[in-house]
Amino acid sequence: MEVKNKYVAMKNHIDGAPNESDFSICEELLSVKLQPQASDDVHVLVQNLYISIDPGLINRMKTHSSTHTSIPEASALLPGQAIEGIGVGRVVDSRHPDFKAGDVVWGLLSWGEYCVVKAGVLLQKLDTSFGFPLSYYAGGVLGISGFTAYVGFFKVCKPKKGEKVFVSAACGSVGILVGQYAKMSGCYVVGCAGSKEKVDLLKEKIGFDDAFNYKEENDLSSTLQRYFPEGIDIYFDNVGGEMLEAAVENMNSSGRVAVCGVISEYTDSLRKAKLDMVQLIYKRIRIQGFISLDLMSIYQEFISTTTQYLQTGKIKAIEDISYGVESIPKAFLDIFRGNNIGKKVVRIVEGDHALH
Amino acid sequence: MEVKNKYVAMKNHIDGAPNESDFSICEELLSVKLQPQASDDVHVLVQNLYISIDPGLINRMKTHSSTHTSIPEASALLPGQAIEGIGVGRVVDSRHPDFKAGDVVWGLLSWGEYCVVKAGVLLQKLDTSFGFPLSYYAGGVLGISGFTAYVGFFKVCKPKKGEKVFVSAACGSVGILVGQYAKMSGCYVVGCAGSKEKVDLLKEKIGFDDAFNYKEENDLSSTLQRYFPEGIDIYFDNVGGEMLEAAVENMNSSGRVAVCGVISEYTDSLRKAKLDMVQLIYKRIRIQGFISLDLMSIYQEFISTTTQYLQTGKIKAIEDISYGVESIPKAFLDIFRGNNIGKKVVRIVEGDHALH
Repeated sequence: MEVKNKYVAMKNHIDGAPNESDFSICEELLSVKLQPQASDDVHVLVQNLYISIDPGLINRMKTHSSTHTSIPEASALLPGQAIEGIGVGRVVDSRHPDFKAGDVVWGLLSWGEYCVVKAGVLLQKLDTSFGFPLSYYAGGVLGISGFTAYVGFFKVCKPKKGEKVFVSAACGSVGILVGQYAKMSGCYVVGCAGSKEKVDLLKEKIGFDDAFNYKEENDLSSTLQRYFPEGIDIYFDNVGGEMLEAAVENMNSSGRVAVCGVISEYTDSLRKAKLDMVQLIYKRIRIQGFISLDLMSIYQEFISTTTQYLQTGKIKAIEDISYGVESIPKAFLDIFRGNNIGKKVVRIVEGDHALH
Repeated sequence: MEVKNKYVAMKNHIDGAPNESDFSICEELLSVKLQPQASDDVHVLVQNLYISIDPGLINRMKTHSSTHTSIPEASALLPGQAIEGIGVGRVVDSRHPDFKAGDVVWGLLSWGEYCVVKAGVLLQKLDTSFGFPLSYYAGGVLGISGFTAYVGFFKVCKPKKGEKVFVSAACGSVGILVGQYAKMSGCYVVGCAGSKEKVDLLKEKIGFDDAFNYKEENDLSSTLQRYFPEGIDIYFDNVGGEMLEAAVENMNSSGRVAVCGVISEYTDSLRKAKLDMVQLIYKRIRIQGFISLDLMSIYQEFISTTTQYLQTGKIKAIEDISYGVESIPKAFLDIFRGNNIGKKVVRIVEGDHALH
């Protein structure tokens, strides 16, 4: 038996800002039974349920990028092929001993309705017994964004009670969780975002101590001085560029910068943070780039901790959901335009998520 | 009894490249007996023997600098007053219980013949029993440069055997020792310097695996690719600017940058390293500014280790010595012009270093 698989592919490599015309919706026929394979090439056929929309994926779409050799999950994407993306799905057929039909899994799936995941590619079974929406595991609070916030804040920033924390893109999927982890750690946390609506959400619903709209500010260094009269101890960077420069200007001695993402630099290779290295030395600042997937050893710790926080209401999950494979390109572009609030996820299948 | 104390002072704050006209040689009369003081303000009168010439001191000469509040040893210098500098001296008189006349000490002394060191300011007794020249302790291999190389390389870079190490300003007082520590750690080490003479010294006498003259290179990123076909694991940065950018371009995954000094940026506040933050993330690069004086807890470890290395000939001390207080301003300017080879030290007293 065959199913029609609709998926999104790049028409071409994308080296600047992405446009809807860079993508096409393709269709193929896919057998729902996998063929026997050599044992070192065992595959799993997955029906995608939710796909996480992550801005860092733009780096995999470039002709050349240092990301392509950094981790298997970030290798170069090829025009015409289904774009890979983190998501949640259900196993339809499996030649891999660890998975069987019906398993709910998360891992590196595709911007499509179905995908074949090869051995060695990120794929893990999900414990769905807590009753949270599956979207939480796709890319949000219990998915890659949550894990990235957890790893970056606790393991890279190493917060201490009372420290002053600044988060950029604070209404994005990672930033909104970093702020909540920071509050739970007894830190003072200020976020920046790109609209009044986002700023209000951060202050009134999410529990940030303060927040500001960076689009209304002219001199980011003075802005940060206003919001952090006692200086910044931790900067969780999701944007790079001038905001990073301004944060370094306002950092305290022994300050830490976790560089999680630099969305302002992804689509403009000439835009780079010009850092004041003299301050870096005398303030003993540490700037650390990181990839959360390196720390899969603490994935279970993250899941149990964050599950508890969600159950007791200490953490709020904010999601921004689109529907259907066709909506993926726009969902991706929306992130670069700042149109999302919280985690951007695309729901692929309607209804109860069973395979029909 | 009074002595004449000749010292160097700034005529004015220095906010760009320093010139000889920024400094003046002053004289004052100083009593060789200290007056009784309140117990919380106990002083030590020191006759300076050797003064270390350190480029970072330029930051203390600026009107405004983030350095001024970073550590007591880096507070703003004031025009007209004797410039403070690390050095070795002999105690002439002491009101402090830890020091007595005749003690040989190192610490924050002055660009002069004598200085009065207040309680709380860096001052330590020296064990001179190994018979090394006292200049070694002033700022060189057993002094602040050696300590900085030791702290920065072993504690900040955390080298592993076989790693590829790049050192800039490799013929400077810190770089020349980092290269030797790196070789002893089983690393492959390449240095850059500003003349053929320096490059030859690094390769033929000091034991660097390779070295190049950066002034003969047009595209530093390609240069580093040539010298590190397998990439850089550790960059010990003494210069900042374009060299730091090129090093980040050529770094391997989990690369570490110890930012020790940024001499190319000290005298030009507009010159900043424009870092590729995308590479920083995907290559998980750590950039760490540091001040060696923060780690005084390992000072004795450094002294015993390095003393042994010197005794067994595993480390060579390269010094560049000038004579007399009058020579200090030129010695300082020479560092910015790249005229020194190895540690720049000024010998203040002729002869056997006794107080006459």
